Amino acid sequence: MTDTRDIEALIDLMARLPGLGPRSARRAVLAMLKRREALMAPLAQALATVALNARDCKTCGNIGTSDLCPICADPARATAELCVVETVADLWAMERSRAFKGRYHVLGGTLSALDGVGPDQLRIPALVQRIEAERITEVILALNATVEGQTTAHYIAEAIEGPGLRLTSLAQGVPIGGELDYLDDGTIGAALRARRGV
Amino acid sequence: MTDTRDIEALIDLMARLPGLGPRSARRAVLAMLKRREALMAPLAQALATVALNARDCKTCGNIGTSDLCPICADPARATAELCVVETVADLWAMERSRAFKGRYHVLGGTLSALDGVGPDQLRIPALVQRIEAERITEVILALNATVEGQTTAHYIAEAIEGPGLRLTSLAQGVPIGGELDYLDDGTIGAALRARRGV
Repeated sequence: MTDTRDIEALIDLMARLPGLGPRSARRAVLAMLKRREALMAPLAQALATVALNARDCKTCGNIGTSDLCPICADPARATAELCVVETVADLWAMERSRAFKGRYHVLGGTLSALDGVGPDQLRIPALVQRIEAERITEVILALNATVEGQTTAHYIAEAIEGPGLRLTSLAQGVPIGGELDYLDDGTIGAALRARRGV
Repeated sequence: MTDTRDIEALIDLMARLPGLGPRSARRAVLAMLKRREALMAPLAQALATVALNARDCKTCGNIGTSDLCPICADPARATAELCVVETVADLWAMERSRAFKGRYHVLGGTLSALDGVGPDQLRIPALVQRIEAERITEVILALNATVEGQTTAHYIAEAIEGPGLRLTSLAQGVPIGGELDYLDDGTIGAALRARRGV
């Protein structure tokens, strides 16, 4: 091989990122080698900074740069509404919608008997604790509309239901811009059952 | 946004890599955030090392860690055969085949009147110089089988042809494992014209 060991090691590491294989990792590294000053050095610096500073929020499980993430630390966010999501990626997706002004609780996955993931692996005990300690009045179960997500949502609903606590989940239906012809039967059925007066 | 500025800056940089968009860059960064010690820190280190040490080979245009790349510095490689390729990626592809034991000359692209790329932008003068100085006896034009690659190959062939210099190009035909039904007409035509006795 012509590329030296450092470059080979870099390609191997890049190939371990999701969405990149050996071929696209090589392509990315070659693109960076062409722009060493403009792209490669800043990227190395940014990675080192984040690797050093990133912390899991001890309250909600989001990722920030201190023990309390920016959302949990923000006094302007509503404290009585808690949005339960599977992953940090889902939390970021919710935030991009700018539709929710409360706080979050990241489970870290879904229940899975096959993979040995029980409630204790999922920050569900921490959720139960928070609901009491933070006097939560509404829990929004924003789990994915998959079998695993909905099973987990059912489990959580049973575990936390009680007087004075409103339990909700995201509406299901036709996505904005969606065309009926391209939607699956399940989505159309859910949208029809949840139809609203115009 | 919930991700702090450092994380956002990292995602922006990752999104500038070929093959990655904003969405896949976010996914890659989240994967790294989950494996900060095992993946993110080593990747930052590998990037910094390569960004600092990578050098363009002054002879052939390959990328190594000194002014002379490992191939040019290798005394075991044949010195009389020169393989002309468009890019470093093509050089690496040739090396993976382990079929060529000579040395390389990387052009850095193809001629393009539209983009203002002339012979002087392509290390073609350096190629002419090398053929004389290194007493090259065969030049293999391993340019891509595209219109741009073949135009550039024709130009180079005219520029360097002379007595005592053998000029060759890669054979065109059916790729190994290729099925005729899925091949384009041009490839089948080229393979038929270059048919060989069994």
